[in-house]
Amino acid sequence: MIFIKPAYAHCDLPCGVYDPAQARIEAQSVKMILEKMQSMEGDDRIRAVVIKEQRSELAKHHLMVLWADYFKPEHLENHPDLHDKFWKAIKQAGECKHHSDVAAADKLLEMIDEIAEIFAETKKS
Amino acid sequence: MIFIKPAYAHCDLPCGVYDPAQARIEAQSVKMILEKMQSMEGDDRIRAVVIKEQRSELAKHHLMVLWADYFKPEHLENHPDLHDKFWKAIKQAGECKHHSDVAAADKLLEMIDEIAEIFAETKKS
Amino acid sequence: MIFIKPAYAHCDLPCGVYDPAQARIEAQSVKMILEKMQSMEGDDRIRAVVIKEQRSELAKHHLMVLWADYFKPEHLENHPDLHDKFWKAIKQAGECKHHSDVAAADKLLEMIDEIAEIFAETKKS
Amino acid sequence: MIFIKPAYAHCDLPCGVYDPAQARIEAQSVKMILEKMQSMEGDDRIRAVVIKEQRSELAKHHLMVLWADYFKPEHLENHPDLHDKFWKAIKQAGECKHHSDVAAADKLLEMIDEIAEIFAETKKS
Amino acid sequence: MIFIKPAYAHCDLPCGVYDPAQARIEAQSVKMILEKMQSMEGDDRIRAVVIKEQRSELAKHHLMVLWADYFKPEHLENHPDLHDKFWKAIKQAGECKHHSDVAAADKLLEMIDEIAEIFAETKKS
Amino acid sequence: MIFIKPAYAHCDLPCGVYDPAQARIEAQSVKMILEKMQSMEGDDRIRAVVIKEQRSELAKHHLMVLWADYFKPEHLENHPDLHDKFWKAIKQAGECKHHSDVAAADKLLEMIDEIAEIFAETKKS
Repeated sequence: MIFIKPAYAHCDLPCGVYDPAQARIEAQSVKMILEKMQSMEGDDRIRAVVIKEQRSELAKHHLMVLWADYFKPEHLENHPDLHDKFWKAIKQAGECKHHSDVAAADKLLEMIDEIAEIFAETKKS
Repeated sequence: MIFIKPAYAHCDLPCGVYDPAQARIEAQSVKMILEKMQSMEGDDRIRAVVIKEQRSELAKHHLMVLWADYFKPEHLENHPDLHDKFWKAIKQAGECKHHSDVAAADKLLEMIDEIAEIFAETKKS
Repeated sequence: MIFIKPAYAHCDLPCGVYDPAQARIEAQSVKMILEKMQSMEGDDRIRAVVIKEQRSELAKHHLMVLWADYFKPEHLENHPDLHDKFWKAIKQAGECKHHSDVAAADKLLEMIDEIAEIFAETKKS
Repeated sequence: MIFIKPAYAHCDLPCGVYDPAQARIEAQSVKMILEKMQSMEGDDRIRAVVIKEQRSELAKHHLMVLWADYFKPEHLENHPDLHDKFWKAIKQAGECKHHSDVAAADKLLEMIDEIAEIFAETKKS
Repeated sequence: MIFIKPAYAHCDLPCGVYDPAQARIEAQSVKMILEKMQSMEGDDRIRAVVIKEQRSELAKHHLMVLWADYFKPEHLENHPDLHDKFWKAIKQAGECKHHSDVAAADKLLEMIDEIAEIFAETKKS
Repeated sequence: MIFIKPAYAHCDLPCGVYDPAQARIEAQSVKMILEKMQSMEGDDRIRAVVIKEQRSELAKHHLMVLWADYFKPEHLENHPDLHDKFWKAIKQAGECKHHSDVAAADKLLEMIDEIAEIFAETKKS
């Protein structure tokens, strides 16, 4: 099973397990909501907007924690645009809150995948 | 990259993305804390106990959501012990709160893996 | 005063006080919101949907905690359908989120009352 | 069953159900923790202090909501010391955080019972 | 810079820093949302209502903490209407939830400023 | 009164009020806890560690929100080290969690003041 492997360990302090999958699951959820919202109205649409708000916030949160807690100064040497990539991905998660088209989530997913690739590289070395 | 694949979609309502990886990441975190706690004392140990409490609670939460929201009556036909498997895994996450040996987290991880296997089966059909 | 009696003690670990009243108060709140929502529109209706979402979630949460933390294997012997009763009640709390008729809350209240009766029985013995 | 009766309705806006039982259940939980804490040390004691902190905070929260949302200016006419009773009960819930003797919770329970009696009176008229 | 001065210290227990600025920032946020809401509709309006709900709740929370934790019996002697001022300000934060005109936030800001003035006086002596 | 002025408005979307004071109040609280912790032991010390954990997390949170939501690409042109300043300040808030000396909070306060100065500059133009 693929989903039981991605938990990498990191040695900061007590809680040292990081995984870009956490942000990605939330972003995937945002995408699904956006897809379903297209045909929703009334109370259902209210709920969709609210849940999209929460899921986008969680994506934002997981990205922030990964950026602030996992990455170390030495990672920045090989990836000088790391800060900017995170900043833009986090802003994109914010965009998902106030947009109603699926493209906003697709862009977020791409940005998270780029970050996930950098994360994977740091794990190899 | 394996960690960008496990986000499965489910068609309940707005937020229909489920993944046992969420519970597993938290359980893995509990395990790491327990390993490090063995040599900790004073303020560090207080922090470790507190963070272990939070991570166990999150593992519990993700298991509860998976059980209550993802699984449907038809899944129970093929897996009549599903309720009991979840109940015991959730109780085991509680055990991780008031135990200080790594074995408690190992047992939790095994139980989550069993649930993840059932989850994967339901995705195939 | 009746409302100062229902707090039963249970001997698990530190926080061992359980009471189905917690889930019931939230379900009662969901019912009231549904009743008032019938004549609401605009911003008021948005608020009603949002608060109903939160209260249903709290009902779900209290049911999950009662099921996972209070009940023990010996209770299952006398109540073999306990898991299923909780599963369905928790799912019904979810139904209250995406329904706009009072009947959804009435059904939830009935299900909580059944669970409360089982809870009361376990207290007698 | 007594515990399914105490949910009174109140007609403020969407979520209009109030019940002093919510604060009392948390205070009862604080008392149980304090009783068990007397013989606890090490990691168990850390957990007890943390959970006592959370339960006291919840007692505080439920008291604040009851005071701010349920009570109306007309109630103050018959109960001019209402503000002070709540203020002192909320402060007592704070005391439960930084005390380790059961008496702190007993005093809180008494104060909540007094408030519950006033609440019951307002329901009669 | 003015915004780095307002953090006053208070000597209750561990977390003893209080500042009416916390409630005021949230109230200011509520006001901005109300101003922008006037021309919003559809999904944007749903979001505005939801965020206004959260910000009003935070204003309420910060007022409650200030009232319950910072103020002491000796402050009441000089300000016998302190309880009532807080009660009404907290209720006004609630009003901001179910009103759509900016005046509701203006009134809340005035009430917080009055409380802030009392707070400042207690700091002088 | 100085503390009623620092709420600046920003025109992003509904909730557009930002203020570095929010992070600073929490950092100030962390400092006070660290000062008092020096002479604390037993249950009091457990509480201090727990509350320090929460307040540091809030400082972290407010810094993250300010960085991700308030600052825009044009601000980066004048302050090319903005990302790095925030990253280090957020990491320092994390350091406050696992350090027991006041110097950790003093350093955090300095870093927040630097950020506050940049923030103030962006308000002038």
